[in-house]
Amino acid sequence: MTPHWTLAERAAKMNPSVIREILKVTERPGIISFAGGLPSSKTFPVAEFEAACAKVLSKDPSGALQYAASEGYGPLRELVAEQLGRQSAAAGVPWKVDPAQVLITTGSQQGLDLVAKILIDAGSRVLVESPTYLGAVMAFTPMEPTVVSVASDDEGLDMADLASKTPDARFLYVLPNFQNPTGRTMNEARRAALAAHAQATGLPIMEDNPYGDLWFEQAPAAPLTARNPEGGIYLGSFSKVLAPGLRMGFIVAPKAVYPKLLQAKQAADLHSPSFNQRLIFEVMQDGFLDRHVPTIRALYKGQRDAMLASLAQHFPQGGNPDDTLTWNTPAGGMFLWARLPAGMNAVDLLPHAVDKGVAFVPGAPFYAGQGDARAMRLSFVTPSVEEIQRGVAALAQAIAEQRGR
Amino acid sequence: MTPHWTLAERAAKMNPSVIREILKVTERPGIISFAGGLPSSKTFPVAEFEAACAKVLSKDPSGALQYAASEGYGPLRELVAEQLGRQSAAAGVPWKVDPAQVLITTGSQQGLDLVAKILIDAGSRVLVESPTYLGAVMAFTPMEPTVVSVASDDEGLDMADLASKTPDARFLYVLPNFQNPTGRTMNEARRAALAAHAQATGLPIMEDNPYGDLWFEQAPAAPLTARNPEGGIYLGSFSKVLAPGLRMGFIVAPKAVYPKLLQAKQAADLHSPSFNQRLIFEVMQDGFLDRHVPTIRALYKGQRDAMLASLAQHFPQGGNPDDTLTWNTPAGGMFLWARLPAGMNAVDLLPHAVDKGVAFVPGAPFYAGQGDARAMRLSFVTPSVEEIQRGVAALAQAIAEQRGR
Repeated sequence: MTPHWTLAERAAKMNPSVIREILKVTERPGIISFAGGLPSSKTFPVAEFEAACAKVLSKDPSGALQYAASEGYGPLRELVAEQLGRQSAAAGVPWKVDPAQVLITTGSQQGLDLVAKILIDAGSRVLVESPTYLGAVMAFTPMEPTVVSVASDDEGLDMADLASKTPDARFLYVLPNFQNPTGRTMNEARRAALAAHAQATGLPIMEDNPYGDLWFEQAPAAPLTARNPEGGIYLGSFSKVLAPGLRMGFIVAPKAVYPKLLQAKQAADLHSPSFNQRLIFEVMQDGFLDRHVPTIRALYKGQRDAMLASLAQHFPQGGNPDDTLTWNTPAGGMFLWARLPAGMNAVDLLPHAVDKGVAFVPGAPFYAGQGDARAMRLSFVTPSVEEIQRGVAALAQAIAEQRGR
Repeated sequence: MTPHWTLAERAAKMNPSVIREILKVTERPGIISFAGGLPSSKTFPVAEFEAACAKVLSKDPSGALQYAASEGYGPLRELVAEQLGRQSAAAGVPWKVDPAQVLITTGSQQGLDLVAKILIDAGSRVLVESPTYLGAVMAFTPMEPTVVSVASDDEGLDMADLASKTPDARFLYVLPNFQNPTGRTMNEARRAALAAHAQATGLPIMEDNPYGDLWFEQAPAAPLTARNPEGGIYLGSFSKVLAPGLRMGFIVAPKAVYPKLLQAKQAADLHSPSFNQRLIFEVMQDGFLDRHVPTIRALYKGQRDAMLASLAQHFPQGGNPDDTLTWNTPAGGMFLWARLPAGMNAVDLLPHAVDKGVAFVPGAPFYAGQGDARAMRLSFVTPSVEEIQRGVAALAQAIAEQRGR
């Protein structure tokens, strides 16, 4: 008899990443890619990892290679708590993070999965920015929420729209710094208003901050969770400041949810790799990030500037914004958000751009609801300055030809 | 206002591992532990990992430290497919594993989580052995199944009981080799009967095989999945043959479920650490396991033999089995299953045993339904032969004193 595989109802709601499917057309040799969300491999501290491997395996090989506690490696949890407290105080909002609140995760993507498991019932209303990080929606989907988009602009969430959608929401998911996909940063006024709103209504906030250290001119305002630690879950990542291939991230969670998150973590993969946790700890201690991260900022800022200059050269501004490409100026991170002239569609443009030798990600899939068909995400961190210049020229050519048809 | 944390309904069903709680009493320095499920750290190939770290970071540091495909590292998937095919053919059942069916996971525990997500709806009937691996039940629980115990004996599942419970079951979860917790192995006759039953009824089988390579006298019979590849999901692990601290395992799944498992994997943690996958590949290639695993088998067999000899010395057999401790003789793996004299309770005994300097895990929590209060799991892999002898003597003393009360 044919095997009776019966998929769970939630499986029908899970779909391949639209972006992953779209990007298949971009997988050709020689393409300049503004599409990927990959940190520049130039920033990976390879020598430091090499030294850390040797040190970890000689110091305590049994500990590094054995099963370990689900909470994570104690010294790394302490380092995370200390660093968050220091950064937050420097931004003007003291935040005393207890290492016991820190849960080490297998990348911050796992943090999204764990939070979804313990906070989302089928039909639960979950609020997200518009647009939002697609990977978060994909992590929430198996728990079958109703994802509700809150209107957002260049400074962050529209507070009136948020207020109208707050009742009965399980939580608000927000990426305040150099957001994926838009590169937007929530300003201080909006953060203060959001924190006040959360305190007035009890709305829990899930703050995702993978890019916060990658600022170009000044550090971003203090985390939302620092302003109301009992009302927020904070997700952090080592992927953008050290390397994504180790899959290391963390959650800071209040006592109201930490024990259940820990149980979900234990059931999900017992614990994150002991070896990787010790590598990250070895590399990070003695203030390595204070020396290393400024070099990443300088590299990415140079590439952002190159992209802005190339865009300005190929797409003169000042006229009707519906007649040309427009874009924002991200203050950090990896992405820039652009908008095609009226009547154009980023999904339709993509294959023509690929023919010209450049790839990007259409913006529409990042919206939980109806997307902006003219929007596109341009990453400036993977290609070199010279490639950025050639890529923007190719993009300009593709847009001009497509408009001419 | 107090933050409105509303836990999902499934969170109420998730509980801390009973065993984890029980084992807190055993966390004292100097205790001889038969309780842990930790591979002996003597078996970790530290020098090989050191060499692999250097090689992986010098050969392709960008690849090893960058984001990667959710399916896993291609060469490792090929190696897994090749090895399974070879082992299965040697056991008499050819199994042509396509590397495209292999999904690398963050430990085989994650395989349990991913399968649960795509196959279990609230109330779905999931069949398990009696007793069964507690970590599997913990991974299934968030998806809210009805876990149904199938009667089991020393040779495996009771086929009549299985037949009566098969209708409407989503799948059967089974650990055929040197099972955790009992050390039992399903014999060839029972495997053939189970495969025939699955083919006749369409019952999908989830075969978990973390211990299969750790045989003492002869390799176990061929996998269940090899007999009916379209009807089974096979879970494997590198934790027991290389090291658990890298958290590396894999799933082999048929086309009917692979795409959904892959989507669940992507949403759960994007991919397993690129670095770790390459380390495992570097260590494994050129047949390292063929040289290394026999040393693990020899070590564990020696320790099993020491435990069997000590048990026979302290608990003479031949009389009424209700009057003394009885135990089985596992043919491989890490665990032995013992049973206290009638009237005794392993949970009650544990603190007294700890007072005498030895710890074990009570068996009752491993049952999905009513457990056997007299059962206990004894691991023989973590302590040395000398510690095993002292530990069994201490256990005998604790049992004698407890019976005397």
